[in-house]
This record gives sequence, structure tokens and C-alpha cells, in this order.
Amino acid sequence: MSHFQRVLLTGAAGSVGTALRQSGTRLGTIVRLSDRKPCENVASHEEDFPLELADFDAVSEAVKGCDAIVHLGGQPLEGAWKTILDSNISGGYHIYEAARRHGVKRIVYASSVHAIGYYERTETIDGSVPTRPDSLYGVSKTFVENLGRYYFDKFGIETVSLRIGSCFPEPTDRRHLITWLSYRDCRQLVEKSLSAPRVGFMVAYGMSNNSQAFWDNRTAAVLGYKPQDSADDYADKVFAKTEQGDPNDPAVRYQGGSFTAAGHFEDE
Amino acid sequence: MSHFQRVLLTGAAGSVGTALRQSGTRLGTIVRLSDRKPCENVASHEEDFPLELADFDAVSEAVKGCDAIVHLGGQPLEGAWKTILDSNISGGYHIYEAARRHGVKRIVYASSVHAIGYYERTETIDGSVPTRPDSLYGVSKTFVENLGRYYFDKFGIETVSLRIGSCFPEPTDRRHLITWLSYRDCRQLVEKSLSAPRVGFMVAYGMSNNSQAFWDNRTAAVLGYKPQDSADDYADKVFAKTEQGDPNDPAVRYQGGSFTAAGHFEDE
Amino acid sequence: MSHFQRVLLTGAAGSVGTALRQSGTRLGTIVRLSDRKPCENVASHEEDFPLELADFDAVSEAVKGCDAIVHLGGQPLEGAWKTILDSNISGGYHIYEAARRHGVKRIVYASSVHAIGYYERTETIDGSVPTRPDSLYGVSKTFVENLGRYYFDKFGIETVSLRIGSCFPEPTDRRHLITWLSYRDCRQLVEKSLSAPRVGFMVAYGMSNNSQAFWDNRTAAVLGYKPQDSADDYADKVFAKTEQGDPNDPAVRYQGGSFTAAGHFEDE
Amino acid sequence: MSHFQRVLLTGAAGSVGTALRQSGTRLGTIVRLSDRKPCENVASHEEDFPLELADFDAVSEAVKGCDAIVHLGGQPLEGAWKTILDSNISGGYHIYEAARRHGVKRIVYASSVHAIGYYERTETIDGSVPTRPDSLYGVSKTFVENLGRYYFDKFGIETVSLRIGSCFPEPTDRRHLITWLSYRDCRQLVEKSLSAPRVGFMVAYGMSNNSQAFWDNRTAAVLGYKPQDSADDYADKVFAKTEQGDPNDPAVRYQGGSFTAAGHFEDE
Amino acid sequence: MSHFQRVLLTGAAGSVGTALRQSGTRLGTIVRLSDRKPCENVASHEEDFPLELADFDAVSEAVKGCDAIVHLGGQPLEGAWKTILDSNISGGYHIYEAARRHGVKRIVYASSVHAIGYYERTETIDGSVPTRPDSLYGVSKTFVENLGRYYFDKFGIETVSLRIGSCFPEPTDRRHLITWLSYRDCRQLVEKSLSAPRVGFMVAYGMSNNSQAFWDNRTAAVLGYKPQDSADDYADKVFAKTEQGDPNDPAVRYQGGSFTAAGHFEDE
Amino acid sequence: MSHFQRVLLTGAAGSVGTALRQSGTRLGTIVRLSDRKPCENVASHEEDFPLELADFDAVSEAVKGCDAIVHLGGQPLEGAWKTILDSNISGGYHIYEAARRHGVKRIVYASSVHAIGYYERTETIDGSVPTRPDSLYGVSKTFVENLGRYYFDKFGIETVSLRIGSCFPEPTDRRHLITWLSYRDCRQLVEKSLSAPRVGFMVAYGMSNNSQAFWDNRTAAVLGYKPQDSADDYADKVFAKTEQGDPNDPAVRYQGGSFTAAGHFEDE
Repeated sequence: MSHFQRVLLTGAAGSVGTALRQSGTRLGTIVRLSDRKPCENVASHEEDFPLELADFDAVSEAVKGCDAIVHLGGQPLEGAWKTILDSNISGGYHIYEAARRHGVKRIVYASSVHAIGYYERTETIDGSVPTRPDSLYGVSKTFVENLGRYYFDKFGIETVSLRIGSCFPEPTDRRHLITWLSYRDCRQLVEKSLSAPRVGFMVAYGMSNNSQAFWDNRTAAVLGYKPQDSADDYADKVFAKTEQGDPNDPAVRYQGGSFTAAGHFEDE
Repeated sequence: MSHFQRVLLTGAAGSVGTALRQSGTRLGTIVRLSDRKPCENVASHEEDFPLELADFDAVSEAVKGCDAIVHLGGQPLEGAWKTILDSNISGGYHIYEAARRHGVKRIVYASSVHAIGYYERTETIDGSVPTRPDSLYGVSKTFVENLGRYYFDKFGIETVSLRIGSCFPEPTDRRHLITWLSYRDCRQLVEKSLSAPRVGFMVAYGMSNNSQAFWDNRTAAVLGYKPQDSADDYADKVFAKTEQGDPNDPAVRYQGGSFTAAGHFEDE
Repeated sequence: MSHFQRVLLTGAAGSVGTALRQSGTRLGTIVRLSDRKPCENVASHEEDFPLELADFDAVSEAVKGCDAIVHLGGQPLEGAWKTILDSNISGGYHIYEAARRHGVKRIVYASSVHAIGYYERTETIDGSVPTRPDSLYGVSKTFVENLGRYYFDKFGIETVSLRIGSCFPEPTDRRHLITWLSYRDCRQLVEKSLSAPRVGFMVAYGMSNNSQAFWDNRTAAVLGYKPQDSADDYADKVFAKTEQGDPNDPAVRYQGGSFTAAGHFEDE
Repeated sequence: MSHFQRVLLTGAAGSVGTALRQSGTRLGTIVRLSDRKPCENVASHEEDFPLELADFDAVSEAVKGCDAIVHLGGQPLEGAWKTILDSNISGGYHIYEAARRHGVKRIVYASSVHAIGYYERTETIDGSVPTRPDSLYGVSKTFVENLGRYYFDKFGIETVSLRIGSCFPEPTDRRHLITWLSYRDCRQLVEKSLSAPRVGFMVAYGMSNNSQAFWDNRTAAVLGYKPQDSADDYADKVFAKTEQGDPNDPAVRYQGGSFTAAGHFEDE
Repeated sequence: MSHFQRVLLTGAAGSVGTALRQSGTRLGTIVRLSDRKPCENVASHEEDFPLELADFDAVSEAVKGCDAIVHLGGQPLEGAWKTILDSNISGGYHIYEAARRHGVKRIVYASSVHAIGYYERTETIDGSVPTRPDSLYGVSKTFVENLGRYYFDKFGIETVSLRIGSCFPEPTDRRHLITWLSYRDCRQLVEKSLSAPRVGFMVAYGMSNNSQAFWDNRTAAVLGYKPQDSADDYADKVFAKTEQGDPNDPAVRYQGGSFTAAGHFEDE
Repeated sequence: MSHFQRVLLTGAAGSVGTALRQSGTRLGTIVRLSDRKPCENVASHEEDFPLELADFDAVSEAVKGCDAIVHLGGQPLEGAWKTILDSNISGGYHIYEAARRHGVKRIVYASSVHAIGYYERTETIDGSVPTRPDSLYGVSKTFVENLGRYYFDKFGIETVSLRIGSCFPEPTDRRHLITWLSYRDCRQLVEKSLSAPRVGFMVAYGMSNNSQAFWDNRTAAVLGYKPQDSADDYADKVFAKTEQGDPNDPAVRYQGGSFTAAGHFEDE
């Protein structure tokens, strides 16, 4: 369904990247994979470009010839500042700057709930609220969102920034009943982000059709996203296996969960 | 379901008017039809009153004895100023002023997406945003909406202004996947607009249950509207037959589609 | 599903209270019942504590040992000031103050549409709009909501205030098609209010899955509420049995229905 | 400037009441004073009606013959529940109900910052935010505001609810630099509340022209209020005499100041 | 201060037009005057072009050679539909369409409080609220505002729409204390509308520095408007000469004043 | 007026830093200066700590012993990515992380109009709108703002982020008439940011009392900021010396001025 000829998929060897590869040519006629390590089982419509995001020349080489990018790569959770800086901040800049130089038209960015993790669970927020990151990782996500905003406003490169909740095989704790995004729905969300006629710069939330929700995901409607899975189907199982949390525990109080309760990475 | 005795349906010979006639007595015990030309196959609960909207006396005669009006009549797309002025602006005034003189209680008005056509497709809007017409046709729609607001505030005549997207047998281009309103859903929307206990002055959007959406249609909930069709069912077909547009083309960028890309009628 | 050991249910002998008792241990391991008169058919997981809400010591005794309260008790419709004052205002204070003294963690309060009854039916409101009570009864509901807000802000006692529309066996007038809450959905709403990991102080609306709606119930999503019944199923029946109202009648114009049309209790 | 013939001023013997008496006939042609104790120095345009607010018949007698009320009376700070209940809650009801029975047209009510005391000082709020009382006293203020809303919506009695900050001879602590209302400005605010052609039900904040502010007082503009004093003139003096507070102390963090830091009255 | 070479001033012979002529070359190097009748005392920087707004050719001729327009012309208060239609609706279209054909860059339009006259006086509104006209005259004002919005969105012609309150030599009734715009401030507002570097399409309110206000005029700040006069200086005089109105009289209740109380022109 | 014992002032040798040094002990009892080069004329209440912001150990050493920081340092306009990364991004992190380790209580950060430079000049924005940076420099400002938000939410370190417009000796172009912040007002704004009892995390705009404005600076009121200078006093001079810009030039259209019109630094 994608109209893009060649799409670069960064972070292709991770769990979400692997799940997205199942979208096949719905991502693009050719899907160029990249990760720190080579990808396995490279299909005929795929090509593999292992690289370090901190290396601008390598990123530039991988971006060349692509007309869209799905950017999942980088440090996927809290880490040391040096790691965040190199992989997520410099890495993010390298992706956007290479995109500008090589005429990429659209970027789908895997942002995160941790960009807004300090909102209370009782608050319903949409994509336009001020960011409230819950970690250096979350701060790096807001950095790339601002970069996307800038490259759209000045250079016209479109971005869908997907603030992904919890993208796992299935919900395993009670917060996941709110934030879970199934792999299938994640694929749909990325495919729709690529096929929507115009996205400009847009922020949408990545969650399945969960009854319990603190996100007003109207921007996902612009994309035509219609989730097919629901964390509700796992509620009994999760309730049976887990204890009720203390509502005053930051991990229970805030949308970001345990990231808000944790201390600083450097101290841990 | 309507509680009205006699409902005037203007534009009854057009495609939407013809579709609405299938609602039969759900519009009113008697449905008075009017258009520039006589209507065909007039049923036993119908009566035909051909007229020119620019002729106040004819309009007044047709309105007399009715307690509600479904006003579809007038120039249905961009046209010369003289046409817009006579059919839509004067025509709209004639309808409201005749309604006031003859004690009509409620008017359902076929407004249009073109009243707000210059909003970006990435913006989610509701019925309370400032209007941004994309054509003289669209300006005439905002004129009648203001007229409806005025006649309610001063004289208590209720209006539902339905900003109809694309009311056709089926979606045929990619923008229709967002804006399509099936004839069946159109009928329901008009019927609910007539049967809701109180509508005051209200603006609602006319769209089917399409996953892709840029309208927050909460006012339709006041009416109890529950669409049964969806453009989603046509997505594969439409994608197969049409090319992806350039996201910077006004026709792709704005909600009004090609009306925003077109030059001025007089120049064409 | 509740994680509470002992839950006090006030107003347990009323129709809604009786319906809620069917939730059994989903409310709490032990459900302590209270009403002015003894409850019937007390089950093994239940214990009965008849009391007057105006009697602080009795309330305090009943609250002791409970970790949550579902507070339905009090005058359930407009009444003389003395009744409202004793049962709803003093009664509400007694519940909260006893809760504070005995370490209760969460209160689910049966507030009412009559706390916001003077909003027009054409207005879509959420839980954060200024209250507009339509009766002394409605004023008493706003009083307890403010009490809940205060006890949360100062003492950390969580409250879900459920503004219940029309909780009856089935819809019997046209306004009920908008405001009806089935007993089954009422049970679910209360159960979810008890089992949600954190609720802080929250206002949600109590309505089933009715197409016709004037409430933006996004806060109910925080609870995971997913109504299973709909007044739509009764629409034909209700339309057949009832007359269309005058849209300028306060009972039709405002969300509170006949409470807004009625004069003052003392004068009636 | 007032167009009212006889205005009842409750709480007339208190400090604010005494200050307001200086407005003389700008309040009304005749000013009827009431307080628990007789007022001193009753002028020729004044008449004295000592009473207990908890006594409905006495209140009714005092209200009879008045066409407007300035209601300052009641417990002016946190107190025991019984006191709050009798003086502020029952007292407030007695004032409004007597007003209804005797045809009073407008009430100016001395509400308080403590009705919204739990907003953070860093939040700028206007009169339409949900109330967040910081004390039982504050809850009683929200009660009377809701009563005023109700009596306006149902009976057309107009109310200006003035949420007064700190009405003292001069600012003496750092929070007063934000919330101070001079007696002179208080007089103007009450006078304007009486002389404005229409007030409906309105909430405005009572503060002088202080540069430091957390209130968006646009509703005061509807009244034409133009403060002449400013806490700024006392800033150096106050800074010299007082210590900087800890920004995490509730008394410094919240708009309500020390009321939010204090425990419960009954426990003190 | 204007950077425009030739500015057309319509309605130049009226009272506001005459007042604006005192701005001299601050409007433009050459000021072309037009009205139904010839203007008097034509200065050396002025040129006179009498015309009927209903005559497109005449309007087009007058617009030719101008790079900006200050459009005051047309029916200045409620009138028969035919008059409103010809002078304000067709006249407005003629101005904009001629502007488009002759390359005019900016239009300053004299809109009116009557475009939003049905807001309550107790509501504070800004320039983005939905219009609520109080007369056919007011409806025609909203029509031209929509036309301005359209011609900016499609053709880039900038518009400042000034919703003028009461532009008279001095306030003479109590509503004027809110809505008065002095001639001096009116001149400043128009001059700033012409000299501001960019205005796009903007709506601002035309009022002097009156303490009593129901408009949030932040858009005027974009223009740099800083009123020098105030209705406050006339308050005592006006209060002395006029009676207090009934707050339930539409003329007192709504922002549009007597226009909301009046019946329909055709009936008067 | 500051209650801080030792305040670190970074960027102390720049023009704004030099202007701020005139605040003397109103910043803190001791003012520790830092810049890349030594500062001149070090006063008795000052101490000089030259350093590179990219050097964490140096920053940490300078922060040690301070209880507040005024952070002006870093690249002050668009620059190469490497410079922005080292000075502004890593530099910003070093300041906050050192603050956390050494118990600093409050940071006043010199953010910039360029964090929101892509808003249209016709839009009035406050401090809560989504950021829209106009340059890599602007993106780095949004990065530090997010860092400040995070360090407050997790560690309680307060931040005032001042989005400074144009802080120069006097306005020299027409955009400065909107954005100018005099040195005197800049000093006051920083002093108030240090002396306000509680600031939490707050964004305020840095502008003098200019009539022409596109910022709703209500958060500055929380600080008690009361500007004493105005660009208005320079308007005639600036208008005389400069040409009117084209309203469609990005430098005229957007709040960020020439930053939005400029290409990318790397290409220049």
C-alpha cells in the first residue's frame, strides 16, 4: 500500500523492527534494513545496511536512495548520557540531516510514552500537550520530535512521530492494560503513517484498542488507524498474576510507569 | 419517526434529494418536494412544488403550511458569483425569512466541507472552529450558517447545519476515504436532525463511519447519529485505481480538496 | 476484581444499591451494607449496618474497618432543604470525615446529572466544566464533589465521582435515550472505579453506550469502562409511547430534564 | 452610583464590612446593616438589623424590603464543621432563599481564594476552572457559589461571586504581594458589582493591581473594575521583614497559602 | 507611516470616514475617497471617486491603481434585505473581487460588534469565537469576514477585520461605556492595521481603553494598537443622564445592545 | 532581593551577561561568573570561573557550592551542529546534572524566541504551545527546556525558562519593535525569577512593554515582572530607517524572523 520506492528501516534487528519486517512491501517496494548488527533472513525485497547511528557518513550512505525512513533505531530505554547522546540525539540528527541532503520525503519516528511520562494517569492528553519526559531517554525522544518539527517547517520533510506505549507480544503488567500496542497494530500504524496522503508533522499515540486509556488519539484518526487488538483480552490474566499497586507510587501515579519511579541512570 | 406534519424538501430532484426521498414519512407525514424542475414519481405522501429559490414569493408559497424544512437546494458547487448570489445567498435568505413568516420550527441545512475547506488535513476540527471557506460556494455556505444562527437567536427557529463531506454512491478518490457520506447514512443524519428533541442551532459533520477522519463530530452525538457505512470498505479499490498525491498540492493538503487548488471561477 | 478487603455500600436498600449488590465480591471481599432500614437477603460475604447518615457516630462506626466506600446513600431527588441538608450535606461530610479518621483509601460517589443539569442539551460537556446544578439536590451533589476534591488534595483519599444519568431498569422517556445507565453498566462502572490502579479525584459520567449523548466521557476511559448496554435498543418503543416535547420547554432544553422545569420544592 | 433602593450588607461589623460602609450611598440609597452584634455609628442612610445567619426567620426579615444584598457574613476562616455548617452553609441558603421569596435582584457574595486554594501558584487560572477548596471553609464557599449559580439559572437572581484574596490594611507576608486587595479597591469592586448593568452569574477575583499575579481576572473587566492600589508598593517592606519560604512547603506551593499546609480543624 | 502608495477609502463621506480622513498621508501617499456622494474639502493628497458599491464596474475602476483599501462603505445599520444585499453583500464582493483583479495587497474592513451581538455581556470573547450576528446587517458583516478569509487563503490578500463597537464623538449610553471607540483611537487602529508588517487575516475589536470590557482584544496587540482614550472619562456624565436598564432586557443582556431587542426590519 | 547565597552566571562575558552583572547582589550574595574567557572587572561580590561548557568536570566544579544558576552560556545563534551539540546540548546537560549532584535549587535559563520561531506573527501564543524551533539553535533551546522539565519533575530542581526575544541596547529593525527586551527589563526579569517564592518549571517570554506583541505573557505575571521600557519609544526612528518588508517573506511572516528565512547553517 506504501507508495514509497525504498524505505529505510532502522533498528531492524530489534523486536519491534523484526515485527515490522513482516509488513513486507507494504512498507515500500524495497525495504533497506539497518541495525548495529546484520539482520537475519534478508528477503528478496530487503537489503541490509548495518551501521552505527553515531556515524554520520554511514547513516548518510544508508539514507541515500531512500524516499522514506522508519526510524526505530537507537537506545531503546534509559541509559548512560553518553549512550543517549550518541545513539539518540546525534543519531536522530544524522537521520534528519541525511534525509534533507538526499531528498527523503517522509519519516516515521518511534517516539515514546516516555516523552510525556510525567502526566498523571488521571489526565487525558492528546498530542499537543507540552512534553514532560520521565528520563534522559524521554528527553532524547522530545529532542527528535523537535528536530522533526523543524525539518518539516523549514524543509518540508514530513514526520509522523508515534509515541509508542508498550509494544510487546502481550501485556504483562497492569499498566500495559492501558499502554499496550500489539505487533499487528504497530504494523498497521506504521503502514498507515506511510500511506496517508499528507501527514505534515504529526504526533500520534501507539496503543491498541484498549478500553482503559489516558490518550485522546484523534491524530491517529487522520492516519486512518483502526486497531484490531485490545489489551482487554488479557485483563483477567494480568489481574490474576499481579498485585494492585499503591496509587501514590510514582510508577502507578504517572503515565510513564516505572521510569518515573526509577532514580537516575548514572546512580544506579 | 419525524414528528413534523409537513416538511419541505428543497433540491428534491438532485442526487442527494432523490436519496433522501427514500426516507419517506420518516421525514414528515407529508413531504413537499421542490426543485427547479418537477420531481418524478411523486408518491402519495409527497406533493411537488417546483420553484426558483431566487423568487421570494414562490419560496414563501412553498414554505406556507410546513413546520420543517430540509434545505438542499441551490448551486451545489463553485459557480459564477451571480449564480451563487441568487441561488444560495438570496435563496437562503428566502428560505429563512419565509420560515419566520410561516412559523416553521426547524430547518436542516445542507452545508458543506467547503465552509471549512482551508483547514489542513492534519488538523482535527469540530463544529465550533472559525469557518475557512475555499470558494465562493463555500462562502455562501457560511452565509446561510450565520443566517441560521441569527434566526435561532432572535426568532427561535432551530437549525441543524450539516457540513456534508462527499455524498456519492461510493468513494472514488482517496480524499473520499475521509469525507464520504453514504446515502444511507445521509438519510439517517437528516432523520435524526428532525427527530432529536432539541437542536437549537447546531453544526455537525456529514461523514460515514470512516476510520480516516479529520473531524471531531461530537455534535452528531447530540443527534444520536450512528453511521452504518464506512469508506474503509472501499479503500483497497480506491488505492488500486488512484495515484498517491503530492502532499504539498493544495488538493491533498487541505480538507476542501480540489476546491482549494482551483483558481477563481470567473477566470476558468 | 476489587483489591479492597471491606467495602461499605451506603444506600444499599435502594434500587441502585440492590443492583450493585449483585456485583458480589467484585466490590470487595466483604461488602458492608448500610441504609436507613435493614437490607434483605444478606449474603455470606455481606454484613448489614443500618444507620442514619445524619448521625456521625453511626457513620463512623460503619466506616471503621473498611478500606473503600461506595456512597449511594442520601435523598435521591429534590427534597425539602432540611432533608437535603441532613442526608446529603451533613451525610456527605460524615462519610468523608469518617473515612479520613479510619484510613479509607477510596470513595466511589454517586453524583448526578443534576449537578450539571442547566447545561443545554446541545452542549457537549466533559467532567471539567463548571457545575450548574438544577435543584437543591443538585447543589448538594456539587457540595460532596467539592468535599471529595478537598479530601483528596489534603488527605490523599481518592474519589471517583460518577455523575449518573438515569439508572433504571429501562428507558421510559425520550431524555432517557440520552442519559440511561443500565444496572449492568452501573455495576461495571463502580467495579472499574474500585479496581483502576489510580483514580486521584475524578469525575466521570454514568451512561450506557447510547448513540445520543451530550457528554464527553473521556474520564471513564481512564477507568476502562466499556458499556455493554445501549438505550438505542429501546428507541422505537420509547418513541411510540411518548410525545415529542416542545424544544423550548426547560425539561427538553436542558440536560437536567424535568428538574429544571420544576419550581422550588418548598413551594410545591 | 448604585441603582438599588435598599441594600442589605451582612457581616457589616467585621473589618471588611466596616470598610465597605465607607462606600455610603454608592451601595444603595439605604444600607441595611446586619451582623451578630449591633453595628456602631449607624449613619442616617443606614439601618441596623443584628441577626444570626443560622436563623432563617431573622434572615428573611432582614432581606424583606431589600432589592440587593452584599453578603459578607459568616465564619471568615477555617472552623469547626458545626460552625461552617450553620453560619456558611445554612446561612448561605437562608440568604438566597429569603432573596427569592422577597424579590431581591442581585447578590454580591464574598467568596474566597480558599475556594480554589489547591491550584499551584505557577498556574494562571480564571473564574471558570473547577474549584479546588483548601479547607472546610473553602468548601463552604464553593457551596454558596453553586447556590448562586442555581438561583440564577432557575430564578434569575443575579450574583457576582468575588473570590477575595487577602483584604487587609496592607500586605504583611510575601503571598499577600500576590493576593492583596486594598479596602479601597474592595469598595470599588463591590460598587461596580452593584452598578454593572448585567452580571448574570459571574465569578471574579478580588485583588489589587499587583504585578505578581496568578489570576486571569478578565471577568472583573466585565464589571469595569480598575484597581487603584498595588501590593508592589509594599514589596520592599515585606521582603525586608520576612524570610523566603521553601518552595515545596504547601503554604508556598499553593495559592491558598497556609490553609493548605494546615491540618484539619478538628485535630488542631 | 503607511507604506502604501494609494489607499482607497470607501464610505469616506460618513462620520467615521470623515474622521479617518484626518489621518492624512498616514493612510497612504494618496488617499482615494469614495462614497455615494462627492466628498467635501478634498485635500491635495486626496482624490474623489463617488460610486455605488452595487456597481461592480465603478468599484473596479476605483480600486484600480490602489494597493490598499479601507472599506467602511455600505449600509451602516439594520436595513431592508435589498439594501443589505446590494450595499453590503454584493458591495463587499465587488471590493474583494476588484482587489484581486487589480493586485491590492491589504484591506482594512469595518466589521462590527453586530457580527457577534448575541454573546451575553457576561461572556468575554476574542476574535476566534463563532460569529453570532444580531441582525441582517450583522449577518452581512460575517459574510464579508468570510470573504476576507477566503481571499487571503486562496489569493494572499491580507485583511484586518475591525469589529467596531460604537464609534461616535462620545459615549451617550451605558453600553457605550463598554463599546466606545473614539475617533482618535479609530484612526490609530486603522493606521496600525495598514502599517503592521504582516496581518494575514485577522479579526480585532475596535474599542478604546475602557475599563469595562467584554472583549479579549489580544489580536489588536499584534497590530501594536495602544488606545489613548477611555469611556471611563464619561462614566459619571452617562450615569447621571441615563437610567439603569433591566438586566433581562435583550438590549442590556447581549453585547449587540438594542439590535438584539429590535424586531425584524421588514416588520417595523 | 535574591535569597540565594551563591549564584553561578554562565555566559557572563557576553553582552547580556555583562548587562546582568549590573544586578550585583540582587542576583545572589556572591555571583560566580563563568565564560570561555575570564571576565573583566571582577567585583568584590563576584568570583570568576572560566570554563568550557562541554567539559563536565569543569562545569561540575563551577556549580559546586552554588544554590542557583543563571544559565546564559553556549552558542548564542545558529551554528554548526558540532558547536550546537557541544555547547548547548551537552553543555545544557552538564549544567543540570551538576546542579543535581550539588544540590542547586533553581535555574534561570536563557531560552529564546527561536524555540517557537515558526509560529506566525499573527498568532498570539503563550508558554504552553508546542515548540516550533526555527533552527538547530532553536532545537537546542527546546532540548534544554525539556531537560529542565525533567529535572523538576524527577528531582525538584526549579527552572524558569525565559524565551528571550531581542536583547540589545535598542531596537534596530521593525521586528524588534515586537520582540525587544531592554537590558534593564532583562535584569528585572532574571531578578524576579530568582526572588519569586515558587516557580516550579515555568516558561515566560522576555520582552519589554511593547504595544506590538504576539505573546501572551501571563506566566511572567507569576514572577511579578513589570517591564519599564518599551520599544514603542523607538518606533519612529526604526520606521524612518527601515523599509517595510514583504508580508510573505518568512522573515516577516514568522515570529523567529530571519532565522526562518535562512537556509541551513552547513550549507551557508
